[in-house]
Amino acid sequence: MSKMTKQNGININCPLPISDYKNILLAHGSGGKLSHDLVRKIFLPRFRNAYLETLQDGATLPYIDQSRLSISTDSFVVDPIFFPGGNIGSLSVHGTLNDIAMCGAQPLYLSVGFIIEEGLPLEDLWQIVLSMESAADEAGVKIVTGDTKVIDRGKCDKIFINTTGIGTIWPNLDIGAHQVEKGDRIIVSGDIARHGIAIMSVREGLEFETTIESDSNSLYDLVNTMRQAGTIHALRDPTRGGLSSALNEIAEAAELGISITENNLPIRDQVQAACEILGLDPLYVANEGKLLAFVPESEAEEILEAMKSHPLGKEAAIIGEVVDDHPRTVVLKSRVGGTRVVDMMTGEQLPRIC
Amino acid sequence: MSKMTKQNGININCPLPISDYKNILLAHGSGGKLSHDLVRKIFLPRFRNAYLETLQDGATLPYIDQSRLSISTDSFVVDPIFFPGGNIGSLSVHGTLNDIAMCGAQPLYLSVGFIIEEGLPLEDLWQIVLSMESAADEAGVKIVTGDTKVIDRGKCDKIFINTTGIGTIWPNLDIGAHQVEKGDRIIVSGDIARHGIAIMSVREGLEFETTIESDSNSLYDLVNTMRQAGTIHALRDPTRGGLSSALNEIAEAAELGISITENNLPIRDQVQAACEILGLDPLYVANEGKLLAFVPESEAEEILEAMKSHPLGKEAAIIGEVVDDHPRTVVLKSRVGGTRVVDMMTGEQLPRIC
Repeated sequence: MSKMTKQNGININCPLPISDYKNILLAHGSGGKLSHDLVRKIFLPRFRNAYLETLQDGATLPYIDQSRLSISTDSFVVDPIFFPGGNIGSLSVHGTLNDIAMCGAQPLYLSVGFIIEEGLPLEDLWQIVLSMESAADEAGVKIVTGDTKVIDRGKCDKIFINTTGIGTIWPNLDIGAHQVEKGDRIIVSGDIARHGIAIMSVREGLEFETTIESDSNSLYDLVNTMRQAGTIHALRDPTRGGLSSALNEIAEAAELGISITENNLPIRDQVQAACEILGLDPLYVANEGKLLAFVPESEAEEILEAMKSHPLGKEAAIIGEVVDDHPRTVVLKSRVGGTRVVDMMTGEQLPRIC
Repeated sequence: MSKMTKQNGININCPLPISDYKNILLAHGSGGKLSHDLVRKIFLPRFRNAYLETLQDGATLPYIDQSRLSISTDSFVVDPIFFPGGNIGSLSVHGTLNDIAMCGAQPLYLSVGFIIEEGLPLEDLWQIVLSMESAADEAGVKIVTGDTKVIDRGKCDKIFINTTGIGTIWPNLDIGAHQVEKGDRIIVSGDIARHGIAIMSVREGLEFETTIESDSNSLYDLVNTMRQAGTIHALRDPTRGGLSSALNEIAEAAELGISITENNLPIRDQVQAACEILGLDPLYVANEGKLLAFVPESEAEEILEAMKSHPLGKEAAIIGEVVDDHPRTVVLKSRVGGTRVVDMMTGEQLPRIC
């Protein structure tokens, strides 16, 4: 059947060599190299247009009169669906709103698409809906349209949620990798790797003195505080693929090098310990309530102070800077004094982390 | 685990009686009665706002200056993913764009969220992407942002696609069930039940002299033709749940009755035969390239003629009218002369039809 339909399709060869990847791998959705390949070689060439080509988390649309819109979409498939610090519902709201905020926009509206496995307890859905409501309310965002599909048992895993957000770009704001310059300071808004470790701890049954909670949170208000304190060149939320992916994306797009200092990376002791037990590098572990900001050196301290005055930025720290001597490469100065290249993740470290 | 997090949640009782539905059933995603229950009792009360409350397929947003936006979201989980007349990719574009068009808007932008099962042949994804490209191009719509998740084998079924669309409402156009009046004529744009039967024929291995192809298509241009020919009170695309669900939704929202004549319903002989073999009522079978229009009696013929001049409206027909003697009820005058009430579907007739 499918064969017949395919023969009727347009005859354009698939740009990926069949010998390398004949089938979709987990790594194609990892946020790492194979994801990039997939986007650049499969989706981008076919859907090509100026808005998509920026490959930002959300698209900036030139629109009616002076206003520009930001739209972003994300599907959430986290396993387990309830975890310390949140659930798939709150995560699906925070995640998409953060993508909008990273575009320098104020999120206004969300759409929600539920794909639910037959047999999901209604009570679970209810708790998820409540969490979505709270998360949207806290962010001042309206969920304006939705869709529900139910899938036969065993053909989906409890619940998947797609959210799509729309926001308005702040006037006169131009944020993106293209603004990043040599000398820019790189700020992280708080401790890293917490979301991924919260999920993995549940999956692996790890127990600590206190439960490690996801950092899942909405970053819009923090960005609003920051933009009033100074110039922002670029923003990124280091979710799937962690700090490493976000930094490598910026380094590549800006054609500059990035140098970070391990000693300056905020990380909680328990998270560090969990990473060691699980054999994970915290630089590759997902965050869901943290941002990376690239700001001019001259304004970095002022912006950092403003961030520290905000509940979500108390532990903000300058972790590195933009350099020109190793373009497209992220280098870490380690605690013991050496340096190492921080590559983009090549496989799938943590499937279904968000 | 999930228990602990839930206890930390807000304590608002679930509005559905536990005795009736403790777990999500297939029918909760059917587009029928239980779907409505779910939306009205679970989602709507929690996400409540003026835009969501209209329960249209898409939300109409008052926006900057004079322009109003339309946004709509839909997840596509059709099985099989390739079928005669299309695939999950073309369907995911047509479906969401049609929802936008049904709001009286011109679709402009789409977001796409892929949820892909590990092991999907890349070639299949490629064919799907090509189909999406074509469908978007034909409709003059840009896919402006996207997301990809890959799920472990066996936890999802090949591929699910969410699309979210944004459009601009035509100025001075006010379309919706609230505009429907007694005497309005009901027009269907062509033969019914084809999409559902195309899918079911593949699943059940039915063979006919010629293959029954899905009617999947983008309806925006047809609507554009219609609005230039006369006044449109309401539009609906009878997808999941078929004509029956769409008519019942309008009857309920308008608090009026609907009377349709079986003899006037365009249906292909092969589709009728397949319905009989499969034991399906064509009124409940999904369409993916058809619309229902509610128009003033005085303008019905003119609009019908305009539709017939359009490639997607050649077989358009007036199938009934709006009455006030059986409010909220759809009545069919059958071929043999009797009448019967056409209820909204109560279960799930055809899972994963779109």
